[in-house]
Order: sequence, then structure tokens, then C-alpha cells
Amino acid sequence: MNGGGPIGRGADMKTTFLDAVKWNADGLVPVIAQEVKTGRVLTLAWMNREALRLTLDEGRAVYWSRSRKKLWRKGEESGHVQTVHEIRLDCDNDAILLQVTQRDGIACHTGRQSCFFQRLEDGAWVNADPVIDAGKTPA
Amino acid sequence: MNGGGPIGRGADMKTTFLDAVKWNADGLVPVIAQEVKTGRVLTLAWMNREALRLTLDEGRAVYWSRSRKKLWRKGEESGHVQTVHEIRLDCDNDAILLQVTQRDGIACHTGRQSCFFQRLEDGAWVNADPVIDAGKTPA
Repeated sequence: MNGGGPIGRGADMKTTFLDAVKWNADGLVPVIAQEVKTGRVLTLAWMNREALRLTLDEGRAVYWSRSRKKLWRKGEESGHVQTVHEIRLDCDNDAILLQVTQRDGIACHTGRQSCFFQRLEDGAWVNADPVIDAGKTPA
Repeated sequence: MNGGGPIGRGADMKTTFLDAVKWNADGLVPVIAQEVKTGRVLTLAWMNREALRLTLDEGRAVYWSRSRKKLWRKGEESGHVQTVHEIRLDCDNDAILLQVTQRDGIACHTGRQSCFFQRLEDGAWVNADPVIDAGKTPA
């Protein structure tokens, strides 16, 4: 946890760690963001090499937007920045887990804490979490 | 949480919830498994329609093995079964989050608690977690 502070500031930018990641056919890897204080899983997003390099360099989550086909600094429009405390890779080298502090406590573009707000109940998906702030829509 | 017990036993097997999921070009969706008691993220795996249906039906995590190209009842060889308490879908309908109880406390085929045991430190991935049981290798 590097003393609980964000990683990346002033980090020596070695890039060999990028070669260890098994990027998929589109050059992407799935990335889970987990709120470091509560353990709540907030988002599943995607990174390419540049996004992971920038995440380490800037100490904030930078993803690849598959819909917009460009780099996406989480919170660049909404202000809902994810400060990154830790980056982990799984045993197959094809999934990443971030420990983050979610600014404003809102990760989802719907204004909810987590994107995982639909719960399966009696064979149907139901909205299980409240909207905290519906005013800020872009993620 | 359905009283804290596993879901699925005796569930009415409606299948319309399967149609709501945005399966990728391979008919798969990424699935995060989180230990319900500790909040630890254990695994990122994949499901197809049948795997999700069986997970709900059987109350244990059933994945699609992309390497073996077949259904994979987590723990079928190792005994490291994941009992499923809750199933959530994200805002884009293209990622799933399971709350599970991990039998034996070991999710990873390397004998570790979580598959996310490699931590990025000073630009390199280092093994950050101990092997609990190296004897049981298949996941």
C-alpha cells in the first residue's frame, strides 16, 4: 500500500511489467476497481498498455473506453476520479485488480456508488442500490 | 443475501434474465468472485449462458473454461467450491459480480487465497501472498 498513499508519483517508469500482461486480441485486459476502505467492488473496465502505463505514472485510474475507442481518465468529465493505491495481476496474467479511493464515493455513470447495482432476485435483475447523485452522469 | 444462505436451490428457473446480459462475441461475460465474509476479490473468470444458468440453479460457481473450452464447476477437481450467495450485473450489463463463500479459503490453482497475488512494486510484479496449500493444484 506504500504507506496508504497513491502510487505512481515519481515512479521509475520501467515498462517491462507491461510485457508480462497477457493482452487479449484487442490489446486489452479487464480491470477490477475496488474501494480500498470498504472493499466494495466498484467497476469492471478495460486497459490497454498505454492506459496501464499512465495509471502507474499518474496514480489515478486510466482506462480504455471500448465504446469511444480512446483513453479515458476516469472522472475526467464527472470529477469521479479513482486514486490508485495498489495494482495487482492475477495468476494467468490476464486480469488486473486496483485498490482505489473513489472520489465523491460515486463510481457509476448512473450516480451510484458501484456499477454493480443490479441484483438477481427470483430470476430477474432488480436495482438494489440508491442513486446518490443523478446530476453528474458522465463517468 | 437471502438470509446469508446460498441462492439457487429450488429457484424457479426463469431464463429471461439471461437475455439481459450482453454476451461478448464469444458468448461470454467476465465474472468477478468476491469472498462475502472478507470482501477479498478472489478470481476473474468467464461464463457463458449455460454457466450462469447452472450457477443459479446449483448455487455454486460454474464457469466457462476458455483454455479447455468446456463448462467448469469451480472446485470440481480441487474441492475448492465457491458457494454463491448473490449475483449482480453492472450498469452496462456486460460484467457480473458474485458474492461467494470460498471452500478451504483457497481460490487459486497455485494454492493461494486469491488469484490476484502479484503486486506491482517499483515497476515489477512480485508475489505478495503466501501459498496456503501447494498440494491441490487444479482449480
